[in-house]
Amino acid sequence: MAAADLVALAERLQGICLGRRLTVAAAESCTGGLLAEAITSVPGSSGYFLGSVVSYADAAKRDLLGVPAAILDAHGAVSAQTARAMAAGARAMFGSSLAVSVTGIAGPDGGSPAKPVGLTYLGLADDHGSEVRRHHWPGDRAAIRESSAGAALEWLIERAES
Amino acid sequence: MAAADLVALAERLQGICLGRRLTVAAAESCTGGLLAEAITSVPGSSGYFLGSVVSYADAAKRDLLGVPAAILDAHGAVSAQTARAMAAGARAMFGSSLAVSVTGIAGPDGGSPAKPVGLTYLGLADDHGSEVRRHHWPGDRAAIRESSAGAALEWLIERAES
Repeated sequence: MAAADLVALAERLQGICLGRRLTVAAAESCTGGLLAEAITSVPGSSGYFLGSVVSYADAAKRDLLGVPAAILDAHGAVSAQTARAMAAGARAMFGSSLAVSVTGIAGPDGGSPAKPVGLTYLGLADDHGSEVRRHHWPGDRAAIRESSAGAALEWLIERAES
Repeated sequence: MAAADLVALAERLQGICLGRRLTVAAAESCTGGLLAEAITSVPGSSGYFLGSVVSYADAAKRDLLGVPAAILDAHGAVSAQTARAMAAGARAMFGSSLAVSVTGIAGPDGGSPAKPVGLTYLGLADDHGSEVRRHHWPGDRAAIRESSAGAALEWLIERAES
């Protein structure tokens, strides 16, 4: 997914959220700020986007987003459990209507047979609770990051519209 | 400053920080994640980059980064005082050697005679304290964000090398 496509998704999300008075926050690991960057590239995004925590280090996931150390120890940073806790943590931190999280292995290093490069978990939290989706993206580091950010925006749009 | 130039600066910063065992964190307002995105686009950046808080809303600057409400009320979100407090707050949050902050008016709206579009303050905190630099960038929203992220990377390189 190209940068222009991410911006088009961000514009669509902004229109829906401003119309429905929804606010959004994020917690990003493998996307490293790409999701927030796409959202805030759109003028007027401050009307609904509260912010993002780019939690690259595990300590940041634990101390800032409140991901329990037991989850990180048992399941790792790239896991459904961590993605769920990151989304819930971001929503609590920012006090947003919706919060999305992304944690994955963007490569080129860091993959393993059980958790290959491209494996990514997204979390989404709202006032009904939190959910997780698992993806395994093809491509290089840039492609994996863009696919992850795109999927996060698409999920936010889907939820904001519902 | 083009995206490729930001990545080249990020590569240079990474080489210096890994060599000197320095860690980096950030607090971004007007760049909205662009700085973290450039840094984390480089494979191996997890070796020195701990994370960033994209504090788009004032409440996030106050509650997450610890910028005093009195500073935000008296000087505004785009001010030397706020930039300094954001950098110090990010450094404390992430426990990094260095932390940089960016707060500015990326436009196209939100400018005033006293604080025109393009006005940007950068903060840098290390174990000697914190400093601030003021810039007034020309160009559109994208150019202002890129200039701000580039100046932040250049300042980090300058400090990491010293």
